[in-house]
Amino acid sequence: MSADTHSLDLLVQALRRLPGVGVKSAQRMAFHLLQHDREGALVLAQALQTACAQVRHCALCHTFTEEEICATCRDPRRDAAQLCVVETPADQAAVERTGAYRGRYFVLMGRLSPLDGVGPREIGLHKLFERACDGTVREVILATNFTAEGEATAHVIGEALRARGLQVTRLARGVPAGSELEYVDLGTIAHALVDRR
Amino acid sequence: MSADTHSLDLLVQALRRLPGVGVKSAQRMAFHLLQHDREGALVLAQALQTACAQVRHCALCHTFTEEEICATCRDPRRDAAQLCVVETPADQAAVERTGAYRGRYFVLMGRLSPLDGVGPREIGLHKLFERACDGTVREVILATNFTAEGEATAHVIGEALRARGLQVTRLARGVPAGSELEYVDLGTIAHALVDRR
Repeated sequence: MSADTHSLDLLVQALRRLPGVGVKSAQRMAFHLLQHDREGALVLAQALQTACAQVRHCALCHTFTEEEICATCRDPRRDAAQLCVVETPADQAAVERTGAYRGRYFVLMGRLSPLDGVGPREIGLHKLFERACDGTVREVILATNFTAEGEATAHVIGEALRARGLQVTRLARGVPAGSELEYVDLGTIAHALVDRR
Repeated sequence: MSADTHSLDLLVQALRRLPGVGVKSAQRMAFHLLQHDREGALVLAQALQTACAQVRHCALCHTFTEEEICATCRDPRRDAAQLCVVETPADQAAVERTGAYRGRYFVLMGRLSPLDGVGPREIGLHKLFERACDGTVREVILATNFTAEGEATAHVIGEALRARGLQVTRLARGVPAGSELEYVDLGTIAHALVDRR
């Protein structure tokens, strides 16, 4: 690229700030937008600016919202005695889609990951502890991911909340619905054996 | 997502207009920008708007530029008798990096792909023919990709330009530098045998 493609180069650099986008993908995106979808580029620019201006965190559950308190936390029909802790709004949406949970949420917006510099403060654990100990919550359901970091996060939160006298549960580990044992990995079967009921 | 995340939903929709970005990636991008990199989101918004306003096509070679004529076409040291036809600015950059070519370019900004509605007009073949027949060009080097569509595009251009009395060549097909025959695919070896010298 030469000097007279300065704004194209800046666009490629800016696209690289998106997670999972390397230099080749960023170039392909920039070429596509400029060649075939300039309207889409302007729509995206507008959407980015609007979202940055409008979206903030719910004062209660920490998820993304445009209000002071998010719609789920405002809903009086939801059970205030149960608090489900998830890593991201996408995880919250997955739990919601099951239709099997009618309590409240706390969204960590991340997971403990000391190697990446993400400690208790970064994922707002102090806010979670404050929220969980507000007197209305009786059970905290840990629904962080079943990855190493998600498990570690669940462990830390569980220890801290049990010390504060709260009932803490974790999503059940086991064989996924619809699966054949032959094709399930060994760790999952081992866990399902230990947690059999 | 509920009604109070309207601008977040719009952002996810807008991100999906990027090539290769599905709903999960778009969500991850939106969450990442809003949670960790709002400055990056605003930089990207600005870069999109600037690029849309500034970037246009070179009047001679059709590549992206901010000037009437791009830097490569303006460069008087480049050989005007040779015209290298490539699909994208990225391909042009790849040829440039070799340092083995000192002629001019024509960038198609695509390839013939009738099933996607991309015909001769969409990739500016009329401009290429006009450019190639301006009296200065003696050799047209077809450097479209060695995919089915790239080959078809090269074939169509080659036929049309030979009919106009121009010398047309194609990048050599063969075994890549540094490769062991054992691991080269059969089609490539077959072509290298046919084109042996």
